[in-house]
Amino acid sequence: MKLQPLADRVLIRPIAAEEVTASGIIIPDSAKEKPLKGTVLAAGTGTKDEEMVVKEGDVVLYGKYAGTEVDLGAGDKVLIMRQNEILAIVK
Amino acid sequence: MKLQPLADRVLIRPIAAEEVTASGIIIPDSAKEKPLKGTVLAAGTGTKDEEMVVKEGDVVLYGKYAGTEVDLGAGDKVLIMRQNEILAIVK
Amino acid sequence: MKLQPLADRVLIRPIAAEEVTASGIIIPDSAKEKPLKGTVLAAGTGTKDEEMVVKEGDVVLYGKYAGTEVDLGAGDKVLIMRQNEILAIVK
Amino acid sequence: MKLQPLADRVLIRPIAAEEVTASGIIIPDSAKEKPLKGTVLAAGTGTKDEEMVVKEGDVVLYGKYAGTEVDLGAGDKVLIMRQNEILAIVK
Amino acid sequence: MKLQPLADRVLIRPIAAEEVTASGIIIPDSAKEKPLKGTVLAAGTGTKDEEMVVKEGDVVLYGKYAGTEVDLGAGDKVLIMRQNEILAIVK
Amino acid sequence: MKLQPLADRVLIRPIAAEEVTASGIIIPDSAKEKPLKGTVLAAGTGTKDEEMVVKEGDVVLYGKYAGTEVDLGAGDKVLIMRQNEILAIVK
Amino acid sequence: MKLQPLADRVLIRPIAAEEVTASGIIIPDSAKEKPLKGTVLAAGTGTKDEEMVVKEGDVVLYGKYAGTEVDLGAGDKVLIMRQNEILAIVK
Repeated sequence: MKLQPLADRVLIRPIAAEEVTASGIIIPDSAKEKPLKGTVLAAGTGTKDEEMVVKEGDVVLYGKYAGTEVDLGAGDKVLIMRQNEILAIVK
Repeated sequence: MKLQPLADRVLIRPIAAEEVTASGIIIPDSAKEKPLKGTVLAAGTGTKDEEMVVKEGDVVLYGKYAGTEVDLGAGDKVLIMRQNEILAIVK
Repeated sequence: MKLQPLADRVLIRPIAAEEVTASGIIIPDSAKEKPLKGTVLAAGTGTKDEEMVVKEGDVVLYGKYAGTEVDLGAGDKVLIMRQNEILAIVK
Repeated sequence: MKLQPLADRVLIRPIAAEEVTASGIIIPDSAKEKPLKGTVLAAGTGTKDEEMVVKEGDVVLYGKYAGTEVDLGAGDKVLIMRQNEILAIVK
Repeated sequence: MKLQPLADRVLIRPIAAEEVTASGIIIPDSAKEKPLKGTVLAAGTGTKDEEMVVKEGDVVLYGKYAGTEVDLGAGDKVLIMRQNEILAIVK
Repeated sequence: MKLQPLADRVLIRPIAAEEVTASGIIIPDSAKEKPLKGTVLAAGTGTKDEEMVVKEGDVVLYGKYAGTEVDLGAGDKVLIMRQNEILAIVK
Repeated sequence: MKLQPLADRVLIRPIAAEEVTASGIIIPDSAKEKPLKGTVLAAGTGTKDEEMVVKEGDVVLYGKYAGTEVDLGAGDKVLIMRQNEILAIVK
């Protein structure tokens, strides 16, 4: 299933965070409230109010509760969110 | 009954999700919060603020609680939602 | 009493729904949450933000809680609602 | 006291509803939630967003809770409301 | 202390209402919910969205809870409110 | 520490109110809900929607809860607020 | 990890406040509700509604709850906030 996000939406594949540190300690929940990283798979065409800035291949930061999860099949889960929910591009 | 959606509304026929897996296990409710798929039957003419992008025949993803159900008769249920509630076009 | 709806309002005469099925079973309340049908009696002249699309004679679908009831006299009840509350035109 | 409503406001003298029917039965409260009738005494000059449509002498329908009551003296009570709260002009 | 109201604000000196009637009966609180009268002392220069209509010397009606009280000194209390809170000019 | 307020913000040094009257009576809290006075130390450059009207040196009135307190050092406390929160210029 | 903030967002490195005074007294929580200081690391390109004013190197004041914390790695925590949340530039 290939998806074309509508308007100012962006399709993002989350990059798994390393939740277990080198010493093997699991970071508690409260420490995970910081933004998450993902790779842009596809971007919408924008709207009158929101020109698209991110593009396919960009690695971006987004808030923990941003977007809606979509299962592309076989448990391959991606996110659809509005560009407005993206905090920054990781260079 | 044939319907012409008003303004930025879209008429969608839901595509039944395969809720029973190959092994016959019924997916529990929480797993069904992901978006649903449907086929666009008709699109409005848009508004000053919302140009129509989806068109008849498009398969689209939308949120579980998007739209209003309309019975076309004989239990043939479709949805009317705003284009803004559509997350992506499935290609 | 003849009414000229103001701005983007529309005057609608509800079409009685067939709430008793062929087999004489009364549809329970939850099943009645779907949209209702009505005939447009008169439409306003629109506003800067809302051009009028529906016109006298159109049969339209609207949500169960749309509009305000007006008694034209002798129990002849019609609805005044904003065009924005109309979901679709029935063709 | 003569009043010039400001902006998109309208001064309305309510028309007493016939709350006692021919048969002398008092209509219960729930039946009175429908719109009320009044005569326009004066209209504001409008705003950038709201052009005035109603004018002195128009009989209009408005919601039960629309407007603010003003006592012109000697118990002569009128209403000041925004034109936007007027549902329709009675012709 | 002389005040120049900012933007679309208006400085108003309330006109004391005759709360005791000819027969000496004090009007109860509920009856005082109607608008109050005041004299415009000064008006702001307006904003892009709100052109000033009232001017010094106008007697205006405003809602009971409109504005903020300012003590000009010696208990001389006036009100600062937005023009938008003024209901009508008394002619 | 010298501050340049951003956009439509204004830096204000509060003018201590005389809370003890001539007779030495302390005004109770409820009587202090009226606006406070301050001197403008610096004004932002404005925004597309808000042109700056107040300027350095103006004495202004503002609501009791307007703005955010900033300590310039050594307990020298000033306020940063939006121009929109200023009620009037004291002349 | 180098970050390019999106739209009207700004990347800020907080400047540690001296929470222990000369006499060694720890300032209680309530006293810390005043704005915090930080250095701008990077600014977005702005939006149609918000032109960027702050730039790399500016020292700025922002509210205690402004922005989202991002860990650049090795516990190097910075903030991403909208320019609108910045109160003033420290000169």
